[in-house]
Amino acid sequence: MKVAFIVFNDLTLLDFAGVYDTITRLKTMKFKNNLSWDICALTEMVRDKHGFKIIPDKVRNNLGKYDAVIIPGGMGTRSLQNDSEFIDWIKTAQNVQHKISVCTGSLILGAAGFLKGKKATTNHNEYESLKQYCSEVLKDRIVEDQDVITSGAVTSSIDLGLYLCEKWAGKEAKEKIREAIDYPL
Amino acid sequence: MKVAFIVFNDLTLLDFAGVYDTITRLKTMKFKNNLSWDICALTEMVRDKHGFKIIPDKVRNNLGKYDAVIIPGGMGTRSLQNDSEFIDWIKTAQNVQHKISVCTGSLILGAAGFLKGKKATTNHNEYESLKQYCSEVLKDRIVEDQDVITSGAVTSSIDLGLYLCEKWAGKEAKEKIREAIDYPL
Repeated sequence: MKVAFIVFNDLTLLDFAGVYDTITRLKTMKFKNNLSWDICALTEMVRDKHGFKIIPDKVRNNLGKYDAVIIPGGMGTRSLQNDSEFIDWIKTAQNVQHKISVCTGSLILGAAGFLKGKKATTNHNEYESLKQYCSEVLKDRIVEDQDVITSGAVTSSIDLGLYLCEKWAGKEAKEKIREAIDYPL
Repeated sequence: MKVAFIVFNDLTLLDFAGVYDTITRLKTMKFKNNLSWDICALTEMVRDKHGFKIIPDKVRNNLGKYDAVIIPGGMGTRSLQNDSEFIDWIKTAQNVQHKISVCTGSLILGAAGFLKGKKATTNHNEYESLKQYCSEVLKDRIVEDQDVITSGAVTSSIDLGLYLCEKWAGKEAKEKIREAIDYPL
């Protein structure tokens, strides 16, 4: 199973780190040995909204070869949802089995057309912005509808990560990882 | 107020991101306009334990000019606690007002001699390893003793961040930031 973590300028680092740190443990804690991942971007370097500098593993790569694509949120999504070059790149994930977002990452999934006719969620301040892209905005922390899983604001990224751990490797894996990161029940 | 976030090879990204994403909001949400920070390392590039590549703002800089130094945990701490070059660099923070760690970052504070005669905490699997460096290991999520604040495993980084928000900017700032990141009470 191959996962693409999407990064972009003005992302929220904790949106990324919550789900990244939990699901990569599926491999390091030996629950899912065939798991691999790349950090993917459209640019050679990315800065989060506070200036933190990230070097992606892959630049402008075809996302169609992954089994899951995960998009974090952040102020950057507000302009990127209208950036045709960025959205065209995201659209290469059209046939990816699991399209996943944290926080306002759902605006990017929406702009790529992946939320059409589906239920989804986003940051609690952006429910209105998401309406144009999906059939219904839910206020739940995690929403799964067919090939799309969306989650709420920032720290819901950890809950999303644990949700994916259970979905992909079972309850025991999820519980052991929850204990390892000492995340309250 | 100037904060140094220390990064190193084989750190745990969520240890870093929890406290980083919360306290940098003190500035972006305008609770503490004089807050600034640098990502500091001993090397030009750092990789977390899963390969994520970070470019620090400052390399091998004197840490003595900061008001707070924050050290995350991760597998890298196990060898770095015995790496005299790294620990000599950390010792430049000797007179820094707030010496702070997440998870096994406390082993680094300890190796630098900053925990002598003080109470501290660390990852729940490393209480024994920390004993050599401090007067008493507590099993609390956050422990403050004089100039040192230590926290527990991975996700305690978010609690630590919110604790620092309240300490440095008051209860309202902490509560607004907790709401913004949608972290459960």
